[in-house]
Amino acid sequence: MSLPIMSSFKKYRVGDKFKLDRCNPAATPFLEGTEAQQARQLDALAIELDKLQNLLHAAGQRKVLLVLQGMDTSGKDGTIRWVFSRTSPLGVRVAAFKAPTEEERARDFLWRCHAVVPRAGELTVWNRSHYEDVLVPVVEGWIDKAQTRRRYAQINDFERLLTETGTVIVKCMLHISPEVQRQRLQERVDTPGKQWKFSMGDLDVRKKWVPYQAAYEKALRATSTRDAPWYVIPADSKMHRNLMIARLLVKTLDRMDLRVPPSDPALEALVVT
Amino acid sequence: MSLPIMSSFKKYRVGDKFKLDRCNPAATPFLEGTEAQQARQLDALAIELDKLQNLLHAAGQRKVLLVLQGMDTSGKDGTIRWVFSRTSPLGVRVAAFKAPTEEERARDFLWRCHAVVPRAGELTVWNRSHYEDVLVPVVEGWIDKAQTRRRYAQINDFERLLTETGTVIVKCMLHISPEVQRQRLQERVDTPGKQWKFSMGDLDVRKKWVPYQAAYEKALRATSTRDAPWYVIPADSKMHRNLMIARLLVKTLDRMDLRVPPSDPALEALVVT
Repeated sequence: MSLPIMSSFKKYRVGDKFKLDRCNPAATPFLEGTEAQQARQLDALAIELDKLQNLLHAAGQRKVLLVLQGMDTSGKDGTIRWVFSRTSPLGVRVAAFKAPTEEERARDFLWRCHAVVPRAGELTVWNRSHYEDVLVPVVEGWIDKAQTRRRYAQINDFERLLTETGTVIVKCMLHISPEVQRQRLQERVDTPGKQWKFSMGDLDVRKKWVPYQAAYEKALRATSTRDAPWYVIPADSKMHRNLMIARLLVKTLDRMDLRVPPSDPALEALVVT
Repeated sequence: MSLPIMSSFKKYRVGDKFKLDRCNPAATPFLEGTEAQQARQLDALAIELDKLQNLLHAAGQRKVLLVLQGMDTSGKDGTIRWVFSRTSPLGVRVAAFKAPTEEERARDFLWRCHAVVPRAGELTVWNRSHYEDVLVPVVEGWIDKAQTRRRYAQINDFERLLTETGTVIVKCMLHISPEVQRQRLQERVDTPGKQWKFSMGDLDVRKKWVPYQAAYEKALRATSTRDAPWYVIPADSKMHRNLMIARLLVKTLDRMDLRVPPSDPALEALVVT
């Protein structure tokens, strides 16, 4: 598949001098063509991703972990639905992280994450992740700067363990504007069939938009490594968000140079009776 | 959606006098129309299943468990791929059961299954299941008749716990003929890209076809209950297998009469700022 606009990913990769407020959530660098063409592109990417995921499964050695983070309504669920619309649930697993339970809080913050890392041949999506633990506690003031820095280092160590043992990690921060969040929350409130997605707590978090953006900026800067980089995904446009993440994943799996295991000479003349 | 041929499910439901050899694996009672029409029917059912699964998720109370059992090449993986081609991995989870690990063998045989029952709002597919433990050990002679009967009862008790706590269980035995298995195994052997799916152990199991069919017959008869019935799915035809299971699932979820939670009056005049 031709992927002409591949080169611009680098611009969205988080580096040392990363500033979140310099990223425009309304940007659409990966959108081109008409809406119908975009829908076809997304479907083609989803089909390509299915092929690559089958190869990952057949090869049976490596693992892929996609981490999705973002404010409420930034589109984590929608991304999963559309990017993985053509893959089989056999090889794609989703783990959703909610507020930690008592059992989880009784262990270190990486415990519940480690329990659901992808197994050989699997692609796993984390819908929220261990990064919640350097966002909520920071904004709420439950941990101080030294503790936060220690968690960044613990996260980097943990992710290094995963990458050194065959996991490719892709981390995406779904970046939306506060105005788009307002619209999407209002839509949930106003639509009876969507009200179940809304909780009053969402408004409390929304009021802390600025400190959350600051916590994101620091966390992303401290944990975007060569082997487990962060990408900021402009996500005011749902189609842009989907296309950019789908392309990023296809590119990532393409580069893994996955192959089915070689033919077994012992099977050459085997006749099943 | 009109489901004109619904009434014949009963015939494939396992009862007290069930005889597996009276079921024709080549039967296609749920096939009608041309191949193109069948593909469209399957896609329509997969889309319907997606809608119902979203409702299950939104309602957030009940759970659905689909158990898939069958000999090698009977199409468990293919069923998952095609029946769930339109659902999001957000709400559909697959648990695959292989030969038990040492950790698993150190507990009762239901331990590893209980760990992966669907949570509220979820549809979970078991690719093989606790039924392996009344098949392999029976054929291999590792457990005697009394132990086997005790396991049947333990399975029924376990499944009753699940159904009494909100889980709808659908159990499908994918029934193929030995000749179709021969063809499919030979195809795996002969196709370099499919060899990774084949293991020499598959041939050993194939040699025990008759005792496996007997073990299936006894197990299904002993564990097909009102709340957790077994269905025998004629599966020589892949399209028939997919259509029959998709219809069965759609019918099952339809009957659950799922609804999104009622509107919250507190949200009526809420304006997000």
